Amino acid sequence: MTATEPHIPAAASRPTQAPLDAAAFRAAGHALIDWIADYRETIHERAVAHLPEPGAIRAMLPARAPEFGEPIARILGDLDSVVMKGIVHWQHPGWFAYFPANSSYESILGELASAGLGVQGMLWSTSPACTEVETHVLDWLVHAMGLPARFLSTGAGGGALQDTASSAALVAIVAARERATRFASDAHGLAAGGRAVCCYTSDQAHSSIEKAARIAGIGREFVRLIPVDGQGRMRVDLLAAEVERDRALGHLPAFVSATVGTTGVNAIDSVPEIAEICRAHDLWLHVDAAMSGTAALCDEFRFVNAGAEHADSWCFNPHKWMPVNFDCDVLWVADRAALVRALSVLPEYLRNAATESGKVIDYRDWQVPLGRRFRALKLWFVLRSFGLEGLRALVRSHVSMARTLAERVRAHPSLELVVEPCLNLVAIAHKGGDESTQRLIDAANRDGRFFVSHCRFHGRLVLRVSIGALATTPAHVEAFTEHLLAEAARA
Amino acid sequence: MTATEPHIPAAASRPTQAPLDAAAFRAAGHALIDWIADYRETIHERAVAHLPEPGAIRAMLPARAPEFGEPIARILGDLDSVVMKGIVHWQHPGWFAYFPANSSYESILGELASAGLGVQGMLWSTSPACTEVETHVLDWLVHAMGLPARFLSTGAGGGALQDTASSAALVAIVAARERATRFASDAHGLAAGGRAVCCYTSDQAHSSIEKAARIAGIGREFVRLIPVDGQGRMRVDLLAAEVERDRALGHLPAFVSATVGTTGVNAIDSVPEIAEICRAHDLWLHVDAAMSGTAALCDEFRFVNAGAEHADSWCFNPHKWMPVNFDCDVLWVADRAALVRALSVLPEYLRNAATESGKVIDYRDWQVPLGRRFRALKLWFVLRSFGLEGLRALVRSHVSMARTLAERVRAHPSLELVVEPCLNLVAIAHKGGDESTQRLIDAANRDGRFFVSHCRFHGRLVLRVSIGALATTPAHVEAFTEHLLAEAARA
Repeated sequence: MTATEPHIPAAASRPTQAPLDAAAFRAAGHALIDWIADYRETIHERAVAHLPEPGAIRAMLPARAPEFGEPIARILGDLDSVVMKGIVHWQHPGWFAYFPANSSYESILGELASAGLGVQGMLWSTSPACTEVETHVLDWLVHAMGLPARFLSTGAGGGALQDTASSAALVAIVAARERATRFASDAHGLAAGGRAVCCYTSDQAHSSIEKAARIAGIGREFVRLIPVDGQGRMRVDLLAAEVERDRALGHLPAFVSATVGTTGVNAIDSVPEIAEICRAHDLWLHVDAAMSGTAALCDEFRFVNAGAEHADSWCFNPHKWMPVNFDCDVLWVADRAALVRALSVLPEYLRNAATESGKVIDYRDWQVPLGRRFRALKLWFVLRSFGLEGLRALVRSHVSMARTLAERVRAHPSLELVVEPCLNLVAIAHKGGDESTQRLIDAANRDGRFFVSHCRFHGRLVLRVSIGALATTPAHVEAFTEHLLAEAARA
Repeated sequence: MTATEPHIPAAASRPTQAPLDAAAFRAAGHALIDWIADYRETIHERAVAHLPEPGAIRAMLPARAPEFGEPIARILGDLDSVVMKGIVHWQHPGWFAYFPANSSYESILGELASAGLGVQGMLWSTSPACTEVETHVLDWLVHAMGLPARFLSTGAGGGALQDTASSAALVAIVAARERATRFASDAHGLAAGGRAVCCYTSDQAHSSIEKAARIAGIGREFVRLIPVDGQGRMRVDLLAAEVERDRALGHLPAFVSATVGTTGVNAIDSVPEIAEICRAHDLWLHVDAAMSGTAALCDEFRFVNAGAEHADSWCFNPHKWMPVNFDCDVLWVADRAALVRALSVLPEYLRNAATESGKVIDYRDWQVPLGRRFRALKLWFVLRSFGLEGLRALVRSHVSMARTLAERVRAHPSLELVVEPCLNLVAIAHKGGDESTQRLIDAANRDGRFFVSHCRFHGRLVLRVSIGALATTPAHVEAFTEHLLAEAARA
């Protein structure tokens, strides 16, 4: 045993299986890498989503944790014998549900390297590379995605990785709340102010906006869910009216979240028009571009950035369409001081010379948690291994597949497009009504080759086809299209 | 190319380095596993913490992301040529700073398996194994750690993994706030209530409690930081007085966070006494046992659980002393309905038959984010590979090393123990005063073999020695002790 292997003194009375040493880790690690590659190479042979009975997985596990260590081979073996019995295959080429959640080989390696290093990036000084690679790569993305210079760390802004767009929305709301109350709510709490802080987003925005506002003490009642137009975009006239009304009532409008790609039908709010209202009323403008933000890598899809130059904060998820494994959300802010001031606490035990020099970023002040892992590694690995051209080719291929599907749907006598498709999402309904659409959804999900999800749009049930898995090829979408069209004729 | 490898159509005009296929992933993955093992086997040869100049890491990176893909060998090579220039070695055997942040080989494999599967556990139905393994393993821990049955998922309670104790505190505070206001703040916001919701914790509690309360809209002023006694424990008499005072002022006391192992000196609040006050005033009792909770694996250290049977929520971090890589915090609640109701939002696109059956847990309602990865795998791997006896042996070895160090300090004429040491943390001061203590800290951290951090306790500077790295052996602590004692004689 070398000096740096796990040091476990002999246990009390009975022999204990030793934890892994380096040699055993190498062998198990190689085996697990191969297991992952085998899984991915054969994933198309599996049904995308075959659910066990509730409790069936638990029932396979012993009632108590083992007293003595088990061999790693047996533990890894349970990936097949237990875990795989309850897995929905998000990496499957027929994954058309929810959102693409790509865990590319590159990002797996980045996550592995991060775990291997095992460093904390809460402060710059607790591992400078963890902070500096992140800051730098997020500046890369500002350039690569054509986002405004105000988000660059070299000015007053900058980016920080969050786990999800939910957390990004929460910290943006907290910063907005403090800007609106001039830090009175931070000092004295929202109760002291008496005036209700109001947030605005569309009724098609992601549920995380409402959840974040509730966590932040704003209350469900003061999250104004603005109706959308026929294409799913926030009605800006109604937003303006609602803000005016709240002002007249003595409330304190503070925050607007515009959606670039709604969860349901991928509608894109008119951020430039929303920004005008925000400017007129001094509201914090947040943009949630969770899935569709990635499209900005391509010049022809830069429409997703419209109005970004007016945003106070802007987020998207590389863990969706950009193939970085979950969790990886990028939040950029135009004024990092506003965010940091709202989230900073500096106890004595975190004081250090680098922080006090003012020359470094301490990301603990940009997020809810104190600790953070070296999450930027996986983003860095993906950007470098794919290259921007590789990522653009991926985005274009998905959009192209979605367009092909959409044209087939448009041409079919029983089907219709619920909205004009945007990017990689096609929202479909059967002309026969919700029951027929439900039958289409059920038929697709029973097939095993595909998995789709649903939403409601203006009251109507919608079959959502979200195309963006790394493994999806035109042949997979073609197979799905044939299935859908055949079922539609029957439904 | 098989049907399920990344599908990247040919890019526009110039050749693009293809992203990794399965064969290249296998080769790169094996190499990276070996790199991690090599790193860990030689980590003791490195200085624990040698910081570069601010900006030095960024300066090694190109100004823009590459247009075309780079070979994976070059990318992995930059782990040495770039990343390692700015890494603080948290896995080093001389890691005595902050807290142990063990990333065991087992947990690295668990994180790798999670990334390889690439599933989302936001709903039971989006990968049942992701939820069921987690629920089950957290029930295992209730038994293994001798925690009260009220935290078992088989009753009204249950556990859920969070990223950190910061997020655990936040969701506990939100649930407490809603219980205290009878969901009025959830519906109408804190401003509507008029009464200030109050939170209580000691002035030695972790900064995350104050941060969480601020995020939740409670305000810094209404986070009552109760003074501590000479051993660092919350003054329960002062807590009682403060709660009475707040009631008299018409405020709404809601939440107490007791600390089992303060960040500074590892003091353990008297949870049973605090619980009496909580019961008398109907306050939510949260216990933050971030590092020291792990000690409950050993019968002789079960004092850390005192009063847990009265707690509404209880958290500890397997990513600290239990060797699971960051991030991995366990939050248990006695009444899961209270937590879920405070955090639940159910949009149409997440509706599914399993959720509506009421037979499953959807962990999205137990945390801030919607999405979640299969984080339980690494905890499951660690518990099984070490076995409970292996983990107990680890805890006992660290406590034993800390006691040996403490006795040497106690016997030294120039040094003193600031408090009676608890478990694996030794808090030391030089009798010559803060300047002498600072010289000891600086000398230890200059040496390269060790890294310690500091705190202030009743105004006094403290050198903290936190013993808990997997690689630490009695010989490493002995070397540190010799160094410290020699320096103390000089300081």
